[in-house]
Amino acid sequence: MGERVVVLLSGGLDSTTCAYLARAAGHEIHALSFDYGQRLVKELESARRVAEAVQARQHVVMSFNLGTWGGSSLTDPSLAVPTHDRVEDIDGGIPSTYVPGRNTLFLSFALSFAEALDAQAIYIGVNALDYSGYPDCRPEYMEAFREVARLGTRQGIEGRPVEIRAPLLHWSKAEIIRHGLAVGTDYGLTWSCYQGGATPCEVCDSCLLRARGFEEAGARDPLVVSAGV
Amino acid sequence: MGERVVVLLSGGLDSTTCAYLARAAGHEIHALSFDYGQRLVKELESARRVAEAVQARQHVVMSFNLGTWGGSSLTDPSLAVPTHDRVEDIDGGIPSTYVPGRNTLFLSFALSFAEALDAQAIYIGVNALDYSGYPDCRPEYMEAFREVARLGTRQGIEGRPVEIRAPLLHWSKAEIIRHGLAVGTDYGLTWSCYQGGATPCEVCDSCLLRARGFEEAGARDPLVVSAGV
Repeated sequence: MGERVVVLLSGGLDSTTCAYLARAAGHEIHALSFDYGQRLVKELESARRVAEAVQARQHVVMSFNLGTWGGSSLTDPSLAVPTHDRVEDIDGGIPSTYVPGRNTLFLSFALSFAEALDAQAIYIGVNALDYSGYPDCRPEYMEAFREVARLGTRQGIEGRPVEIRAPLLHWSKAEIIRHGLAVGTDYGLTWSCYQGGATPCEVCDSCLLRARGFEEAGARDPLVVSAGV
Repeated sequence: MGERVVVLLSGGLDSTTCAYLARAAGHEIHALSFDYGQRLVKELESARRVAEAVQARQHVVMSFNLGTWGGSSLTDPSLAVPTHDRVEDIDGGIPSTYVPGRNTLFLSFALSFAEALDAQAIYIGVNALDYSGYPDCRPEYMEAFREVARLGTRQGIEGRPVEIRAPLLHWSKAEIIRHGLAVGTDYGLTWSCYQGGATPCEVCDSCLLRARGFEEAGARDPLVVSAGV
C-alpha cells in the first residue's frame, strides 16, 4: 500500500517529475504549491494541472509575499532576469534568480503540512547537477534539513521523523526527463521559463537547461512544440 | 558599532526580552512578526508596540495561514487550549498548543529576511527550560537549524553565515525576567496568554509559566496589575 506523502509542486519540470514518481509508487499525494510573489504565475496554473493529472488527494497553495524584502530577480520587478544565448554561457556563480531562503521556506511549510497530516514523506525536486547554482540545492544542505525535521517535530521525537526524499538530486536534466517519461510524465503540463511571458523565452537559464535536457534525452519538449516555436 | 539584526518578535515575554537585549547591545533592529492564523491577534498589537519601543528600523508582519492544515489548538478553533489550575499540573508531553513546524517556519522567514538585508544575526527567544514542551525549542534543534543557515544561503557559501542567537535558551523564566528588567524591558507592552480574551486568562500554560516567572524573579507583572486582576 502507498504511503501518505507531501509533494512540493512548483509546476516546473523537476517537481512535476517528482509528482509522477510518487504517483507511480502508489502514494497518496498531498500537493503543496506557493504563491510567494514570484513572477511565474503561469507555474501555479501548471501545478494545478499536474496535481489533477497525478490524482492528488488535495492541492494546497500557500500564499506569502517574499516581495516584502525582495533580494531576488524572481520577486523584485526592478531586477532583470539574466539571459544567455547558449547554455554554456551560464557561469558558476549564484545568479540573481536565487531567492533567499526559498527551499528552506518550502521545506518548512512541507514539514508543517506533513506533521499535521501525519505523512510519512516529503518529495522535493531539488537537483544538484543541472541546477542554477543555488546553495539550497546541494546534498549537504538536504542532510542539514533532515536533521531539522528529525529534531524539531513531534514526529521526530516519537522516532518516526518524516522522510525527505529528493529522488532527482543526483540526476542530470536528461536523466530526470528519461525517468519522468518512463513513468508517463506529461511535460506538456509543466512550465519552466523564469520570465513572465505567454510562451517560453528560450534564453533564461531555466529554458536553456530544459532545452539541453530534452536534447540529451533524445526527446521532444511538448511545451515548445505546442507553443509553435 | 551595532550590527544589523533580525529580531523574531511575537510580542510575548521571551521575544520582547530578546528585542530589548538587542537594543541594549546597540544593534540596528529589523523586527519580524507573523500573522499565521493564530488566535493571539493581541500578540501582534504587542509586537507593534515593542518594535516602536526598541526603535526598530522596520517592523515587518509576514502573513500566511497555518489554519489551512491546522494540527494545533492555536490555529484550529475546533480544538480547545489546555488549561490548568496550577503550574505544577502541566505535564511533560507535547501539548495541543504545539504548532507543527512553527519555529522552523519562523527561522526560515528570518533567514530569508536576514539574507535580503545582509544582516549579521537573527535573535530568537526560544527557551529550553520553562517552556511548553515543544520539540523546536531544544538546543539540539537550534544547532541543526544553524547548519541549514550555514549550508543553504549565499551568506553561508561566502563564509559569513548569519548567526542565530538564542540568548534565553538556558535561562529560567525568572532569569529571563531579571535580565530583561536589567535592560529596561517594559513587560507592560507584552502579551503571553494563549486564549483570545481581553485580559490574561491566568490558567493556560503560558499564563501560569509567566506568573511563576515573575513570582520567582521577585517582580510584579505590570500586565496583571494594569488589567486590575
